[in-house]
Amino acid sequence: MNNEERTEIESLGEFGLIKVLTENNSTINPNTIKAVGDDAAVLNAGDHVKLVSTDLLIEGVHFDLSYVPLKHLGYKAVVVNLSDIYAMNGFPKQITVSIAMSNRFSVEAVEEIYKGIYLACENYKVDLIGGDTSASKHGLIISVTAIGEAKKEKIAYRSGAKENDLIVVSGDLGGAYMGLQLLEREKSIFIENPAIQPDLDGNDYLLERQLKPEARKDIIELLEVLDVIPSSMIDISDGLASETIHLCDQSNVGASIYDEKIPIDPMTYQRALDFNMDPNVVALNGGEDYELLFTIRQSDYDKIKGNPNFTVIGHIQSKENGIQLIAKNGTQHELSAQGWDAFLKSKKS
Amino acid sequence: MNNEERTEIESLGEFGLIKVLTENNSTINPNTIKAVGDDAAVLNAGDHVKLVSTDLLIEGVHFDLSYVPLKHLGYKAVVVNLSDIYAMNGFPKQITVSIAMSNRFSVEAVEEIYKGIYLACENYKVDLIGGDTSASKHGLIISVTAIGEAKKEKIAYRSGAKENDLIVVSGDLGGAYMGLQLLEREKSIFIENPAIQPDLDGNDYLLERQLKPEARKDIIELLEVLDVIPSSMIDISDGLASETIHLCDQSNVGASIYDEKIPIDPMTYQRALDFNMDPNVVALNGGEDYELLFTIRQSDYDKIKGNPNFTVIGHIQSKENGIQLIAKNGTQHELSAQGWDAFLKSKKS
Repeated sequence: MNNEERTEIESLGEFGLIKVLTENNSTINPNTIKAVGDDAAVLNAGDHVKLVSTDLLIEGVHFDLSYVPLKHLGYKAVVVNLSDIYAMNGFPKQITVSIAMSNRFSVEAVEEIYKGIYLACENYKVDLIGGDTSASKHGLIISVTAIGEAKKEKIAYRSGAKENDLIVVSGDLGGAYMGLQLLEREKSIFIENPAIQPDLDGNDYLLERQLKPEARKDIIELLEVLDVIPSSMIDISDGLASETIHLCDQSNVGASIYDEKIPIDPMTYQRALDFNMDPNVVALNGGEDYELLFTIRQSDYDKIKGNPNFTVIGHIQSKENGIQLIAKNGTQHELSAQGWDAFLKSKKS
Repeated sequence: MNNEERTEIESLGEFGLIKVLTENNSTINPNTIKAVGDDAAVLNAGDHVKLVSTDLLIEGVHFDLSYVPLKHLGYKAVVVNLSDIYAMNGFPKQITVSIAMSNRFSVEAVEEIYKGIYLACENYKVDLIGGDTSASKHGLIISVTAIGEAKKEKIAYRSGAKENDLIVVSGDLGGAYMGLQLLEREKSIFIENPAIQPDLDGNDYLLERQLKPEARKDIIELLEVLDVIPSSMIDISDGLASETIHLCDQSNVGASIYDEKIPIDPMTYQRALDFNMDPNVVALNGGEDYELLFTIRQSDYDKIKGNPNFTVIGHIQSKENGIQLIAKNGTQHELSAQGWDAFLKSKKS
């Protein structure tokens, strides 16, 4: 290493850093079908394929224990990984969980985290097959690896979108972000005056979206029943804008997204207005909804038409078109990738 | 959670904690062949099985960057995981690597870690297939998951040892621990007087055992050539004593180990004496050698006899016999499980 050079990681950002670290990566094992660059890696496994995805969650970076209950944290740590497996159009089957904690944590606290982990295993029919436990010098660290299965011909990569495909999202967007805003607001009030009790009544849906998100297993099951194989798919962890750009980049296409079509729950909409935020900006850039963004061939449209689980928000265009966000009045502008982190920072500063 | 109860994690220890967290774990997926409790989990994969193992490494707990070069750290983080796959009598094929670091680390520093990771991938013919990168509040955190393959009939579990089987170790033991002692000594001297240059000359073997250990891929290949399937196997990460106890516990057997048979390199032996340590205690309890401890049927003895890679150190007895360490003069005492952490602590305090 040349000691005279020092590039700050934040000058690259997470995606830039991953690019630097993996740009010369090549694979040699014939059973490695897909390595880095999608929601999960794909490995040949005889009659099926295995899907592998992993996440590292750090206290103070990914979660704040001043308002996240430990059991919810365990549950969410698993669910965010399972979401990556569903985003390949597969089903998670096993997880490993590694956990490191400082001596601030008791055995009872760790058991509480594992109650959430086991509840997620039960709800999603996943087996806990291994892990590692360790001391840490500071705070709590959780690393989860999820392993799933799929039929090879059913895998939905990020790279499969083709011109004229329809762009579809499941559920609604922006709720988890507004839940986070509510929790952050109550935390600030509590820090200023600990005598004031948190006022979170009537916001159950938003709080649940943030604290106890679910992965869309039901959507993958529904697509199977409807006989729809998405031409491409990604889960929405960083925000609709950022994920749309990933999907288009990897498919080498452009897109048109209709602002007014983006599904927003009325409660998300109202709270965004309360916080002087544009609900559509929240839905586009607020992360952690863990909904699925996917494309289908136009010929599959009739199979999903009118289904309340799905919203068609636009269609794939040629690459030259870029990725356009089209407002109700017909004006359009190029979609930019703020992503969740950038959005949070710009909101906070 | 009952807030009135608080059990300290150190009162249970790592193995005790894992037991509490996993004692009610059950699996439901038919492709989950073996979950927690061995060196790696075993998953059905059509014509073969997949092996999965994971480790979490925390700065200040598992490594000390004041004397571990970043490239070596990346290399070792991978190798210790691969070792778990070999300990199942399988071959690692893929890894995922997640990494979190504080802003103390530059892009160049992270690239240096990845140079070590890629070098390990190259040397062991393993593909990097995924991971996660993140900021951390404090220090460096690395989580590696290794995925391997084996033929189902070749897997060596910890639980397969039978009475009269021979107990075999690869290589020699205690070297990594003496390497650590040398590094710790030089660090203390440096802290007291930074003008004194480290004096590590002539200790290359011990330093390499600690800083750049290798997993015993060659032993697994050799066993294949010799047509020996170990009846049980475990890798020696915590120390021979601790691993022998794990293996006997899970096989529900006892053992006799002959103190004088334990393989110790002359340099390890000499440095132990220099440090006023008993070389056999170092070999029994010093960890991180990543050699393999395994058992074979007596009928396989001729296949390994005289091979310099293997040392027969004892044999399996009935459970009633306990696990006995037999000294040169014939006296014997029950082997106790100090393990690596306990040993380190007792040496330091």
